[in-house]
Amino acid sequence: MTIQTRRRGGGRAGNTRRSTAKAIEQMPWSPPVNVDRPTEPLSDEGVAAIHDTAMRILEEIGIEFLNGEARDYLREAGCTVEGENVRMDRDWVMAMVGKAPDTVTITPRNPDHAITIGGRNMAFVNVSSPPNVMDLDRGRRVGDFESFKDLLKFTQYFNCIHVAGGYPVEPVDIHASIRHLDCLYEKLTLTDKVCHAYSLGPERVEDVLEMARIAAGLTHEEFDAAPRLYTNINSSSPLKHDWPMLDGAMRFVKRGQPVIVTPFTLAGAMAPVTMAGAVAQSVAEALAAIALFQHIRPGVGCVMGSFTSNVDMKSGAPAFGTPEYVRATQMTGQMARFYGLPLRASNACASNAPDGQAMWESSNSLWAAVNSGVNLVYHAAGWLEGGLIASYEKFVMDCELLQQIQRYMDPAITATDAGSLAFDAIREVGPTGHFFGTQHTQDRYQTAFYAPFLSDWRNYEAWQEAGSTWTADRANATWKAILAEFEPPAIDPAIRDELKDFVARRKAEGGAPTDF
Amino acid sequence: MTIQTRRRGGGRAGNTRRSTAKAIEQMPWSPPVNVDRPTEPLSDEGVAAIHDTAMRILEEIGIEFLNGEARDYLREAGCTVEGENVRMDRDWVMAMVGKAPDTVTITPRNPDHAITIGGRNMAFVNVSSPPNVMDLDRGRRVGDFESFKDLLKFTQYFNCIHVAGGYPVEPVDIHASIRHLDCLYEKLTLTDKVCHAYSLGPERVEDVLEMARIAAGLTHEEFDAAPRLYTNINSSSPLKHDWPMLDGAMRFVKRGQPVIVTPFTLAGAMAPVTMAGAVAQSVAEALAAIALFQHIRPGVGCVMGSFTSNVDMKSGAPAFGTPEYVRATQMTGQMARFYGLPLRASNACASNAPDGQAMWESSNSLWAAVNSGVNLVYHAAGWLEGGLIASYEKFVMDCELLQQIQRYMDPAITATDAGSLAFDAIREVGPTGHFFGTQHTQDRYQTAFYAPFLSDWRNYEAWQEAGSTWTADRANATWKAILAEFEPPAIDPAIRDELKDFVARRKAEGGAPTDF
Repeated sequence: MTIQTRRRGGGRAGNTRRSTAKAIEQMPWSPPVNVDRPTEPLSDEGVAAIHDTAMRILEEIGIEFLNGEARDYLREAGCTVEGENVRMDRDWVMAMVGKAPDTVTITPRNPDHAITIGGRNMAFVNVSSPPNVMDLDRGRRVGDFESFKDLLKFTQYFNCIHVAGGYPVEPVDIHASIRHLDCLYEKLTLTDKVCHAYSLGPERVEDVLEMARIAAGLTHEEFDAAPRLYTNINSSSPLKHDWPMLDGAMRFVKRGQPVIVTPFTLAGAMAPVTMAGAVAQSVAEALAAIALFQHIRPGVGCVMGSFTSNVDMKSGAPAFGTPEYVRATQMTGQMARFYGLPLRASNACASNAPDGQAMWESSNSLWAAVNSGVNLVYHAAGWLEGGLIASYEKFVMDCELLQQIQRYMDPAITATDAGSLAFDAIREVGPTGHFFGTQHTQDRYQTAFYAPFLSDWRNYEAWQEAGSTWTADRANATWKAILAEFEPPAIDPAIRDELKDFVARRKAEGGAPTDF
Repeated sequence: MTIQTRRRGGGRAGNTRRSTAKAIEQMPWSPPVNVDRPTEPLSDEGVAAIHDTAMRILEEIGIEFLNGEARDYLREAGCTVEGENVRMDRDWVMAMVGKAPDTVTITPRNPDHAITIGGRNMAFVNVSSPPNVMDLDRGRRVGDFESFKDLLKFTQYFNCIHVAGGYPVEPVDIHASIRHLDCLYEKLTLTDKVCHAYSLGPERVEDVLEMARIAAGLTHEEFDAAPRLYTNINSSSPLKHDWPMLDGAMRFVKRGQPVIVTPFTLAGAMAPVTMAGAVAQSVAEALAAIALFQHIRPGVGCVMGSFTSNVDMKSGAPAFGTPEYVRATQMTGQMARFYGLPLRASNACASNAPDGQAMWESSNSLWAAVNSGVNLVYHAAGWLEGGLIASYEKFVMDCELLQQIQRYMDPAITATDAGSLAFDAIREVGPTGHFFGTQHTQDRYQTAFYAPFLSDWRNYEAWQEAGSTWTADRANATWKAILAEFEPPAIDPAIRDELKDFVARRKAEGGAPTDF
């Protein structure tokens, strides 16, 4: 193509989006509906082969359930329990899994922020659980309560974040016995989105359930009548479910609250070096727990998690957003649809900085979520270093990607009605004109295209004049502007006081034991 | 998940890939075969509606052909020619397009680097035609012959670059009358991959065809017997084909050499603000030229190009890798398959620096190429600022992405044979072991996973100790190492002398006129 046609309109290139008082102009709350047909690398025979392998793992090898109550339930259901090992018949597993609903709707204290997990619905969860936090000004440091609150503010602020997952960073400056109380108080007052509780011992789980009930202003009966929050448990791969995870999940299940079961199957380390084997093991581990939960409470919401990636075989370091990760997610998507279960995956990356590598790894992970039919995208904003760092700048950068995926799922882009086909506008403009001035354009230009809040589309000269800022530098300015203008969502002062009182009382009682 | 399970194996985290003498360890030459089913946002009715609109554009509005010879051919074929406007009947257009092959194989001077365009084949082309060049050391500057040669060396060096497209940067320090001679001499000696000729006037086109013939050591008859190189023409949207583009393309077609026709339809500027309209216009412009070429030489290779994106409606700046760009590429993919034509698209981005934005825009563009069934990915490595900058570092970073796509297309990842399902390894390891030591892993670990040359997967401490380099900094070191070790591909000294003599003779004759 000739250079001339690509020259930008110099005079109009000024970036006007900072002229508003708001930190950014963002898309409204609109969890995307995935309109794409998934990418399916497995043939029907491939799906059957992985299913058969998963069933053989459950029938012939078994899963360790390090929880007596869970084993009692499984024994009662007819499984073969030997020590901590439980083997289960495939017919029983499939019968139990068949009781799980294909979608589950969770309603937080602000019912406008209810989300549905399953079907073609997608929802994005903030970064969860890193021990460290990082920003460009202060570098990497151990997570603390201040950064925990900052990241919760981003979680609430961005409309493209639909769920307040685990702690966006671990606030290590708060003693573990009372951490969950302070954290949940902030989570339930700084945000009004669906939230998560860690399965880290009975006291914590019960405290969090109670605080979520108080925050929503519900009676115990009302609370238990529908999903209000959820927990996520990870198997201890290979082939093991730990005590606190099972204990917490069973408490949730008995209250009708949903559970996500996410094996962490790094191929070559905790799972076979081959992706079909790693996926089969992941499926077996997930189904074993889901079968248990359906036995305890038929119909309770259960989500299959996928966290199958590979290690760097030179260093042993985990890798994310790799070609193998993308394919494993697609394969697990096929298996989840085979079982009729919603699917969780992640926006994972291994980079140590919010740089080019971080964004290609995250783009790989996010497009994998799109083309695998993933319903819940964990760590959708803010992850670095394989989950060991929560990054302020990466949070902002990821939200730019998430908005793009939301827009990508808007069927308006690919509409082929007469107005969209634009034959009359093409005839009107003819071979010498320009489309900007046409009525067809004027009627549509304000909503025709996605408007990014972080991308800089100015030409080089304008960009240079404005300081030649790279993406992470712009993200740094954005999060500061967000924190400066952040206002917490509305809450009834009486409810806030009730939450405060609960926290004070439980602290006075000593919080949760910390000896496990 | 618990933090412990994600801790990296510290002792083995050292990065050993620099210990080899080679700048990088890269994948072998292996143009990918796209095994995925394309993403198809249009229904059959949507495809039919865009087709009908494209046909109505050709029948009722017409395309301007600013070339008398082309109009003579079209008049002879029964089209309605009025001035420069040509209207063509849809039955004739479809009959002509039906003569185009669905794949075309181009064989350069090194037959091992032949590529097939069409079907499920993908090939990646270097950055083409920016006026400026940039690297982290020297910043942005006007393109020159030295940077032109450097970028050609990258083009040859990286096995994931399959085609030496247009000039990777415009060497403005060489007078336009002889630039094509010096450039093609370097292109044909520094690389041995399929190359491209600009359609910029008869003398240049004839010179380049002759130089490609000499380089391949072929007689005129042998050269004309099969595709040896190609040209790409851009319509001057809306609805216009310029003289030199048509002249060059017709010269290629008459010699049996393939032509890519790529309208540059920026929605809201040179095309309707709606993507269906922009795609319909693009299709009409492309088919008008392809019909002409099939009339002149039935069966000659013709490729449909897609370059439909949107402008920033606030500034008028072109945007790339946007949600609209991704959908437009998918829609054009559906249309190309409807017409049985191979498809070209691009790895496009708008960023001014090799930063996070550059990589998410490029990732969007590359995944769009994958899920649209694109056969030839132009500007696959090195593009910045909407094509106004060729970037050394971005070239290296993009090649990392391209290798990942090559690996992603390896069916071995998703194989479900008994060895891949790994049931015996899972039984052997059981609930307490680790897979690294198993025979199943040892038999496979060297090739099980993609090994990046640019990603840094070390943990934070090791990364920090090594200098906390961001991706672009590592790419900077990589291109220097590549230039230091680069060796041009073998060429018969007699052929090189013949090329030199040709260049000297044509320079003595004054090169090409520069008054157009």
